[in-house]
Amino acid sequence: MTAQRIGILHPGEMGSVVAATVRNSGYEVCWASEGRSQRTRARAENAGLIDAGSLANLCDTCRVIISVCPPEFAADLAEQVLGRGFRGIYLDANAISPAHKQQIGARMQAGGVRFVDGGIIGLPPKSRGQTWLYLSGEHADSVACCFQAGPIEVEVIGTEVGKASALKMCFAAQSKGSIALLIAVMGAAEHLGVLEDLRRQWTRGGPALDKSEGHVLRSAPKAWRYVPEMHEIAATFEAAGMPPEFHQAASEIFDMLREFKNTDPASIEEVLTKLREFR
Amino acid sequence: MTAQRIGILHPGEMGSVVAATVRNSGYEVCWASEGRSQRTRARAENAGLIDAGSLANLCDTCRVIISVCPPEFAADLAEQVLGRGFRGIYLDANAISPAHKQQIGARMQAGGVRFVDGGIIGLPPKSRGQTWLYLSGEHADSVACCFQAGPIEVEVIGTEVGKASALKMCFAAQSKGSIALLIAVMGAAEHLGVLEDLRRQWTRGGPALDKSEGHVLRSAPKAWRYVPEMHEIAATFEAAGMPPEFHQAASEIFDMLREFKNTDPASIEEVLTKLREFR
Repeated sequence: MTAQRIGILHPGEMGSVVAATVRNSGYEVCWASEGRSQRTRARAENAGLIDAGSLANLCDTCRVIISVCPPEFAADLAEQVLGRGFRGIYLDANAISPAHKQQIGARMQAGGVRFVDGGIIGLPPKSRGQTWLYLSGEHADSVACCFQAGPIEVEVIGTEVGKASALKMCFAAQSKGSIALLIAVMGAAEHLGVLEDLRRQWTRGGPALDKSEGHVLRSAPKAWRYVPEMHEIAATFEAAGMPPEFHQAASEIFDMLREFKNTDPASIEEVLTKLREFR
Repeated sequence: MTAQRIGILHPGEMGSVVAATVRNSGYEVCWASEGRSQRTRARAENAGLIDAGSLANLCDTCRVIISVCPPEFAADLAEQVLGRGFRGIYLDANAISPAHKQQIGARMQAGGVRFVDGGIIGLPPKSRGQTWLYLSGEHADSVACCFQAGPIEVEVIGTEVGKASALKMCFAAQSKGSIALLIAVMGAAEHLGVLEDLRRQWTRGGPALDKSEGHVLRSAPKAWRYVPEMHEIAATFEAAGMPPEFHQAASEIFDMLREFKNTDPASIEEVLTKLREFR
């Protein structure tokens, strides 16, 4: 019966959709409420997750643990799980560089844990075909069965830890990097007194950039979380022989928007006003 | 009669469309063949331009001179025109930072030249409504009449030297910056062994990125010229309180593609092969 139990750390916005996918696929899903916020607790209850109470108890009762957390906590969370004596399969689905993921994987495998690399591409989905969990590593196939029923789609892309992370890093490098670039362009244009001229020129080339303004607005509440992700991408690029500066700059931009944490700006102008504070 | 003569430096690919627009608008257009390539000479003859022979003669016979050249030659070209005793209206339509343009403008105005800032956005156009020449500066209106009949569209956006350049810099920051970012992303993905996975994921989000691959191919033959433009954009961003690193990275990417000068790569793979030489 414990073979059917899957643990999730932590059921945040994305984590709860991952958990829902695992439940839909026929498994019981546990979480550990100790030290978690009221908001996370409410989300876990709504999602029908079983509260294992402590992390230690979660590690005792689950054969598979899935980690979904902000990138800067990934290593520490893995360490905690290892420290609680966990010896099952650990899926680290966090947005960190392949090298960083391999480091964590090596430590866990040395401690007797079977480690799987994961990368999630897309927003928390409402239906199938929107968001993919990519898996790689020797034991990837043995966790893929936990994600058969959606809404998250699953795909195994290799037997090597680092591949799923590499794909995640490259995808986010383009999607988030281009949003950061756009924010910087608009910030510069505003400062130089040509923002309205630029917008008019953009409409002359078609409506593509109008859509991008929507991406800017949706990125602001998550900018605080993108800062460490941009550092991971910069490290990924550097290791791959590409200039890391794009995403160093992107991390600066998202850092300027840090205060929007979990609150939606009303307009692009509100985003630009925030940038002005840093001049 | 000399009031009707407009000089163009130099009738390259974009310069000859600028010249054609001026001719269509009812002016005689001169150029100076001394020291120019056979290719430029053929282009100027095809466009029906009058050869003034030397730069000194061009400066003597034209009341308006238009400068369209790679960004790194803009200051030197203006200096040469000033040195030949030119005292008419000088339109600098090159892709340089507002501060750089203002420096050139200040030197020319101190020498008795009426200076107009220009920024060209778009490819050399075949028909109207594709490419804009933005003008700014006190004397902008007095040259706008030279561009009434297309194919290039003209628009005066202010009385201040620097505004037209600022608009050009911001537009190119987004368009060329995002292409450079895309090239770097594909270079990293290839190195990490996930390029095909990334392309598949891109098609899952819709066809937008496929279109971008065409932009990459079209940018390669011009990459050598984008390198100094990226430095100008980085300087523009820094002066506007935005991170210059995006375009420092973009200049590195375009520099790696420098050898494609005026030759089209057959495929994205050929572009990526070139990047590999720099690892």
